[in-house]
Amino acid sequence: PNGPAEARARARNGVLTKPPGALGRLEDLAIWVASWQGTETPRLDAPQVVIFAGNHGVTARGISAFPAEVTAQMVANFEAGGAAINQLSQAFGAQMTVQALDLDRPTADFTQGPAMTEAEVVAALATGWQAVDPTAHVLVAGEMGIGNTTVAAALCAALYGGDAEGWVGRGTGVDDAGLARKADAVRAALAVNAGALGDPLEVLRCLGGRELAAMAGAIARARGEGIPVILDGFICCAAAACLAEAVPGALDHAVAGHLSAEGGHEALLARLDKTPLLSLGLRLGEGSGAALALGILQGAVACHSGMATFAEAGVSDG
Amino acid sequence: PNGPAEARARARNGVLTKPPGALGRLEDLAIWVASWQGTETPRLDAPQVVIFAGNHGVTARGISAFPAEVTAQMVANFEAGGAAINQLSQAFGAQMTVQALDLDRPTADFTQGPAMTEAEVVAALATGWQAVDPTAHVLVAGEMGIGNTTVAAALCAALYGGDAEGWVGRGTGVDDAGLARKADAVRAALAVNAGALGDPLEVLRCLGGRELAAMAGAIARARGEGIPVILDGFICCAAAACLAEAVPGALDHAVAGHLSAEGGHEALLARLDKTPLLSLGLRLGEGSGAALALGILQGAVACHSGMATFAEAGVSDG
Repeated sequence: PNGPAEARARARNGVLTKPPGALGRLEDLAIWVASWQGTETPRLDAPQVVIFAGNHGVTARGISAFPAEVTAQMVANFEAGGAAINQLSQAFGAQMTVQALDLDRPTADFTQGPAMTEAEVVAALATGWQAVDPTAHVLVAGEMGIGNTTVAAALCAALYGGDAEGWVGRGTGVDDAGLARKADAVRAALAVNAGALGDPLEVLRCLGGRELAAMAGAIARARGEGIPVILDGFICCAAAACLAEAVPGALDHAVAGHLSAEGGHEALLARLDKTPLLSLGLRLGEGSGAALALGILQGAVACHSGMATFAEAGVSDG
Repeated sequence: PNGPAEARARARNGVLTKPPGALGRLEDLAIWVASWQGTETPRLDAPQVVIFAGNHGVTARGISAFPAEVTAQMVANFEAGGAAINQLSQAFGAQMTVQALDLDRPTADFTQGPAMTEAEVVAALATGWQAVDPTAHVLVAGEMGIGNTTVAAALCAALYGGDAEGWVGRGTGVDDAGLARKADAVRAALAVNAGALGDPLEVLRCLGGRELAAMAGAIARARGEGIPVILDGFICCAAAACLAEAVPGALDHAVAGHLSAEGGHEALLARLDKTPLLSLGLRLGEGSGAALALGILQGAVACHSGMATFAEAGVSDG
């Protein structure tokens, strides 16, 4: 973040034609974007949405309401423009791309051992890193991967402790028996990968998945490029949490787009110390909640960068 | 609302490429818009934002942090494109217009008698009615009027009872003494206009203001035209409440855009039985919170009308 730009943006905010503080959280958001873009008058008209897709060996444990084939089917749907994230990207003027990561080669079943080798997690991180457009004004990193709410729950349990039951949720819609299988899988994964638990990036390798590692890579790259990030739901935030636990301040350039209906998300956001912009009961993934929040951030920045000052408009400032 | 269109929209929602319910409240919003637009695949690419401005005799009581001249100054700012609502309207593709209602002739001080004559309130209602573009896909009715949080508090106290202190708030930023003067003004207004209290439209005349009556007229017109409305904050909702109390169901075509930071808004939304889409601490008026919520509604409709079905996309539906 750029201190002088932030100070200039804060000063500008104080003389815009509105009562002090009347735009509420929008004012802080705009100043925060200004600090990352290094300019008093930031812009968000070139958002990037990138969706990473991966498959998970743990789906063999009956932990999803949908078959693993749906990951590839949904990638085709993204490419054809038919998914929710396509519509939301278009609605908010975002460039959207999809990266499928070795869908025909799922991660190993993490109830039996590490999900990925070192080479695999590094390749996934690199895919995410390279997917970021350095000219983007803001980044949404989304995901698709049948089974990945179980993966995210395992990451949270590994990073923050707590019962498996507290981190697993209904995902795409599992029943009570499915929910119990998810908790069993998380417990087994933590037991077999106990050696990873002290190291957040080892946690990502052993208990994560390719699309989660790719999101982490993209979010880390965005920080270096000074690109603000809108975090999506439980899975995106679980990937981001590996960064936050590895490097303090690693998510200073990120805002929580929304509170997902997925069970563990609220506790995870509390751990990340992020207050979501929206709370509308979404639990789709694909970056959809973050993309919806693009409009809020764009509105905040439009006001900040476009409004007249009291002096310019000839309005009495109280 | 159109029952067959709603049923078709609901059926369509059930076969779109997402787990059932995964778009949360967006799904209900899109179906609701469909029911008002009378089509299975609604559109929101032509929003209308109209801002009504009025002045209030009660400002002589020292109830605002800003002088009454600011109303006209802000109208000029709206016309020049410098206000927050200009930026938000542009960000979400809305046509925006401003209607100043007799700014050089404030309403009468309602602590001394009725704010408006019958002719005056009818003229204001008509201004609002005529301001609606019948081809708009969705309507935001906003306001500007120094002193009008006191007016809105008086309307709420008159319609719903309760202490004046419970309905007044900081508005543009009054101090404790100003807040006490607001409560005093509301109490005096209710006492001197006691004869109006049984009739919501008499309440609007005696305790309202021109811009509030115009918003009520616009919202009523939109209902007849089948145009969904996004309600803004405390003042807009107070005007709308006069309709809701006069005619049950009068706000069925309206959704609450946001929860304002202004003190009485939460209780007012509860009375209207509306759950806000956003809660970001805004308290600016001008239709700004509703305009910000345009993006949410546009996102909901974009998903609903643009997504592929499971059959179209060749995706397994679980």
